[in-house]
Amino acid sequence: MFYDVGLDDGATQADEDPSASAGTTEWVAAFLAFAAYQTFFAAIASLFVWWEPVSGGSGIPEIKCFLNGIDLPRVVRVKTLLCKVVGVTFSVAAGLPVGKEGPMVHSGAVVAAGISQGKTRFWGVDTSFSKFSDFRNDREKRDFVACGAAAGVCSAFGAPIGGVLFSLEEGASYWSTKLTWRAFFCAMTTLATLFWVRNMDTLWLFSFGEFNILSGESSNFSIWELGLFVIVGCLGGLIGAVFNAANEHLTIWRMKRINHSKFRRFLEVIVVSLIVSVVSFLMPLLWGHCTKIPKDMQEWTNQEKNLIEELIPFGCTPGKEYNEVASLIFTEADTAIKQLFHFREAGADDSSTFSSGALFLFFVPYILTATLTYGIAVPSGLFVPSLLSGAAFGRLFGHLLHKLDHTNGTFADSGTYALMGAAAVLGGMARMTISLTVILLEATGDMQYVLPLMLTLMAARFTGNVFNEGLYDIHIKLKKIPFLEPDVPPIAERNEIVAGQVMSTQVKCLRPVERAGVVYDLLRSCGHGSFPIVDTASGGTLYGTASRYMLCTLLQRRAFGSPDVLEDYDGPQQHLGPRRLSPLVQWDTIERAYPRYPKLSDVDMREGDRNCWLDLRPYANTAPYTVNETASIQRTYRLFRTLGLRFLCVVNHNNQVVGIITRKDLLPEALTDSLLRGRLSHEEADEDGRGML
Amino acid sequence: MFYDVGLDDGATQADEDPSASAGTTEWVAAFLAFAAYQTFFAAIASLFVWWEPVSGGSGIPEIKCFLNGIDLPRVVRVKTLLCKVVGVTFSVAAGLPVGKEGPMVHSGAVVAAGISQGKTRFWGVDTSFSKFSDFRNDREKRDFVACGAAAGVCSAFGAPIGGVLFSLEEGASYWSTKLTWRAFFCAMTTLATLFWVRNMDTLWLFSFGEFNILSGESSNFSIWELGLFVIVGCLGGLIGAVFNAANEHLTIWRMKRINHSKFRRFLEVIVVSLIVSVVSFLMPLLWGHCTKIPKDMQEWTNQEKNLIEELIPFGCTPGKEYNEVASLIFTEADTAIKQLFHFREAGADDSSTFSSGALFLFFVPYILTATLTYGIAVPSGLFVPSLLSGAAFGRLFGHLLHKLDHTNGTFADSGTYALMGAAAVLGGMARMTISLTVILLEATGDMQYVLPLMLTLMAARFTGNVFNEGLYDIHIKLKKIPFLEPDVPPIAERNEIVAGQVMSTQVKCLRPVERAGVVYDLLRSCGHGSFPIVDTASGGTLYGTASRYMLCTLLQRRAFGSPDVLEDYDGPQQHLGPRRLSPLVQWDTIERAYPRYPKLSDVDMREGDRNCWLDLRPYANTAPYTVNETASIQRTYRLFRTLGLRFLCVVNHNNQVVGIITRKDLLPEALTDSLLRGRLSHEEADEDGRGML
Repeated sequence: MFYDVGLDDGATQADEDPSASAGTTEWVAAFLAFAAYQTFFAAIASLFVWWEPVSGGSGIPEIKCFLNGIDLPRVVRVKTLLCKVVGVTFSVAAGLPVGKEGPMVHSGAVVAAGISQGKTRFWGVDTSFSKFSDFRNDREKRDFVACGAAAGVCSAFGAPIGGVLFSLEEGASYWSTKLTWRAFFCAMTTLATLFWVRNMDTLWLFSFGEFNILSGESSNFSIWELGLFVIVGCLGGLIGAVFNAANEHLTIWRMKRINHSKFRRFLEVIVVSLIVSVVSFLMPLLWGHCTKIPKDMQEWTNQEKNLIEELIPFGCTPGKEYNEVASLIFTEADTAIKQLFHFREAGADDSSTFSSGALFLFFVPYILTATLTYGIAVPSGLFVPSLLSGAAFGRLFGHLLHKLDHTNGTFADSGTYALMGAAAVLGGMARMTISLTVILLEATGDMQYVLPLMLTLMAARFTGNVFNEGLYDIHIKLKKIPFLEPDVPPIAERNEIVAGQVMSTQVKCLRPVERAGVVYDLLRSCGHGSFPIVDTASGGTLYGTASRYMLCTLLQRRAFGSPDVLEDYDGPQQHLGPRRLSPLVQWDTIERAYPRYPKLSDVDMREGDRNCWLDLRPYANTAPYTVNETASIQRTYRLFRTLGLRFLCVVNHNNQVVGIITRKDLLPEALTDSLLRGRLSHEEADEDGRGML
Repeated sequence: MFYDVGLDDGATQADEDPSASAGTTEWVAAFLAFAAYQTFFAAIASLFVWWEPVSGGSGIPEIKCFLNGIDLPRVVRVKTLLCKVVGVTFSVAAGLPVGKEGPMVHSGAVVAAGISQGKTRFWGVDTSFSKFSDFRNDREKRDFVACGAAAGVCSAFGAPIGGVLFSLEEGASYWSTKLTWRAFFCAMTTLATLFWVRNMDTLWLFSFGEFNILSGESSNFSIWELGLFVIVGCLGGLIGAVFNAANEHLTIWRMKRINHSKFRRFLEVIVVSLIVSVVSFLMPLLWGHCTKIPKDMQEWTNQEKNLIEELIPFGCTPGKEYNEVASLIFTEADTAIKQLFHFREAGADDSSTFSSGALFLFFVPYILTATLTYGIAVPSGLFVPSLLSGAAFGRLFGHLLHKLDHTNGTFADSGTYALMGAAAVLGGMARMTISLTVILLEATGDMQYVLPLMLTLMAARFTGNVFNEGLYDIHIKLKKIPFLEPDVPPIAERNEIVAGQVMSTQVKCLRPVERAGVVYDLLRSCGHGSFPIVDTASGGTLYGTASRYMLCTLLQRRAFGSPDVLEDYDGPQQHLGPRRLSPLVQWDTIERAYPRYPKLSDVDMREGDRNCWLDLRPYANTAPYTVNETASIQRTYRLFRTLGLRFLCVVNHNNQVVGIITRKDLLPEALTDSLLRGRLSHEEADEDGRGML
């Protein structure tokens, strides 16, 4: 009678049914067993997150960041994959209002990243000998992760095109045909694999079922109902906005009070799981009303007949009656969504498979527990909870419409409204645009819904955006990750900011040939990933850039030239000439360490080394991306966003470095700051910057 | 009996039917009337192209170029739109094997471009007073054209998502969420308009009809048939490649012998139209065989019953028999495609609605005349001819499979094979990838075909690419347009070319303050669109760039300073100081002329003006895009492609201009050239380049 854990139900249900018509003691015993099971599974899921904290949550914010060019630690590790996959199995089995779709996208991305590297320390595999080593750089890895995410979406929703669009919309800001083609191929392979693994009828891991059965060849809705769909979209956007706001406050509270201790996080999972158990058990009891299973099903489709079998008695006579609320709570979320989409209204009168009261009694507690659950230390997707609560809301909406007008055929079937509701709430929560439309369209499998879905999702997005951002963006912001939105913040566009205004003028730079001690101190004093190399011989023009990992490797490998090969050359008059001033380290040696380069702590710097010369010229990137100080902020932003840059040198007309822009400087708050600082202080700072060289 | 011209048939057919069972004289009369009609319509279509030559052809290559950043003259003018729309109506009505989809995409793009400008000289409208004037620049116009193309695809195929993807794949190389969102909104509006204008049953202007009727809830094909679909894809790719090669040779011949004279082009249309008439009339006569219209249609769908009514007797007893070849030739292409897709094989035995012989007798002449037709001086799309011949080929393939195995149900319905054949031939001709899949998928309206379509299209593309390029690309190449493919040519990637190798070192540059005579002579001596301004005071660093239109406007407006305000300042020692040396022209004045700036011929340059000073500093773009000479060709290519650049300054470490790269330098042939020139001559050239400054 409790939420059945595997994919096969029916068997477990039969075992539990005897307790259905029993006394209070048996009810209590049933509840205790149910709660114990749920909590046990939730605890296991939480233990995996304890082991690898990154595997908690849906993983989509992390993938968004990765595709945006931010390399969050441990996001694409094999250990994360393992914890995510096993963890999500248990968290779904625990009956928590969580989905497996987000984690599936994350898993796809990890698999892709792993394949691109052909190397994992976790399993001790390394395929450096093969062609795979060509892929060992951030750009290729990013492309692979985009493909993996596409494959993940494809396997989660059976939506190959939606998957490709998801990757493109979220990450690959540069439309490269090669990448599109790769992602497309990936998604296609995933789809073909799904075809082979499962038989054709249960093709999708996730499906909305068949829609075009009810009405035959004509459309399932009339044109004027598009207006109603827009209203559903607006309401869904509102629900999503409230959900996001509540979850945001909850997350802020959690960050303060819970997240600093792993044990508290574990305890929180136990508590939330118990709350979910109580709510799940109480609601059907509160409903306490048995509904007769429809008898005259001659003209019903096989799909509906199958769904009828999934209805749950919960205290009613098995096989004849069912409890409406229990049927929504205790079946798989997948099945519950299909029930909401496909059960036809039983007749022209009020009686429906799910009545308004039952839908309401399911919708409100479910979305509340979902709000509570997202953010606890278990792997948890958000798509299914949003879709399910949205479907309940949409069906409720359709139901009320049918109450307004009893004649048959004025309004579309409530299932259509359930679909729109699902889209609206999901859209209001996630605020994705074209990719979400395509994903839902592919899951629906029926092209006639393209216009209603587009309208609903747009309405939901616009309504939601009035109040706050999408939930993924909120979580990214809360983590203080310098995530760059696709478009330049409006404040920058309004005020025509130029690169020179936002740059930081505290430039830490190196000379082409530098003393090892200076390099070491510089690396220790700040955590930047890249440093400009400035040619003092030609009056401070930009020579190139040196990355932190390269400098660390050089120091660790002790590629030092004797202190005597060169006198100190601080004056701009001296030309270094072409000779190498320190031993060469092979490029390959530096590259091979990817992605775990030596850290500064691995460097053994002795006092005698500090005066040795480090010749950076062979390793410098001599054609780094730069912007002129008078370049518009739009161009600067676009460079960062399309190329996933983390750092950019700002130069003047003589190619002299006058400042540095990092991602943090381009966030809306930083842009506002630099506007307030104003032109004057900028010019002061400018002088400082030049002084440094 | 001849091809009926409007959208409503049936009425005209009844009038012609008496001639069906008549003697030779009546046949000849019928043919003459038929040929006269066809030729008359074709001549009218051709006259419109005579008036505006750009309106000939499908328009998709022109839109591709526009989105690529190449502003072909007159492509987005209102006159072009008018000629295109009226012309295509007549060329389709003339019964030529042409489609209206390509011209529809072009028309959508023109409408969008017009709206973005809010101004047309053709109708004398100008809305400079409104917000529209903000959109008057090349970038916004490009975005609007992308949206218009999306709307065009949407209206042509009822494929909103396919339309958005088409725009993104073909043009908008930079994935901007704003653009996606706009294109999406455009496509949605188009769809909603279509909904309102037409009733729900005949929703799409172009439709593949309902597919999921035959098999009910199960799939229309078995998994192992995916292999067969790949074979269909390969064969379709082969057909497409042959089609492209033949059309390429024909076009080269045309460019030599026909295109230089408008009268010859007109004559060619008449000749081709007569050939098409003869072939169209001869083929059904050659077939000369009457087939009985199926009687037992109890279990047939309405769609099939409607299609049965479209069958054409052509000499057989009307209402009882039909001529198979005539039914394919003399119906609308739309209907013919649906017939090929949806007529079920009449039984387990050989007899089918269309027999192999008829399909063959239709396919071969049709594709030959289509090859002949594409490129003559009428507006003509390529989608429908490809789809129709592909559908015939695919059905033939399916038919032969059914002959191999007489048992029912081993192979999928021939209609499914017809769909795959249509996709394969279209894919083999156009070589589009993800956008074509989505367009076809949306036209099909059934998600179960996603995997077969993907596989077929990929197979067609790969097979075709072995032999030649897509037809649109071939035509772009033949017109010698510097079109940049999405990916860097492999030769550049293989040889690790840097920007310094491909640049042209013959840089024509100006000084920040220049004598009017020098500017005038420079503009007259070459047609470049942009010139670097080099600051001689600081040793030749790049000051900014000046566009041709800006220089012309300044000369035309006589923004000259007296020759005496400044001595000649060729030496690098002199600083100009901040004072303006010539009267200012308002920026707005320069911008308002967009897109028809004054030409050099509009400038009235007198001898006395030649020594006057032109102060370019207020107008220069002081932060132009540049690349370092050591930058990789990939980065250079990406800059051109993503930003639609036409010109890029190459600078050295001191920001001194060492060369210029234009689009032509990045074409594969130019890259090969610069490789052959080799490093040595590059360095020589490099010296020259510096010498120039």
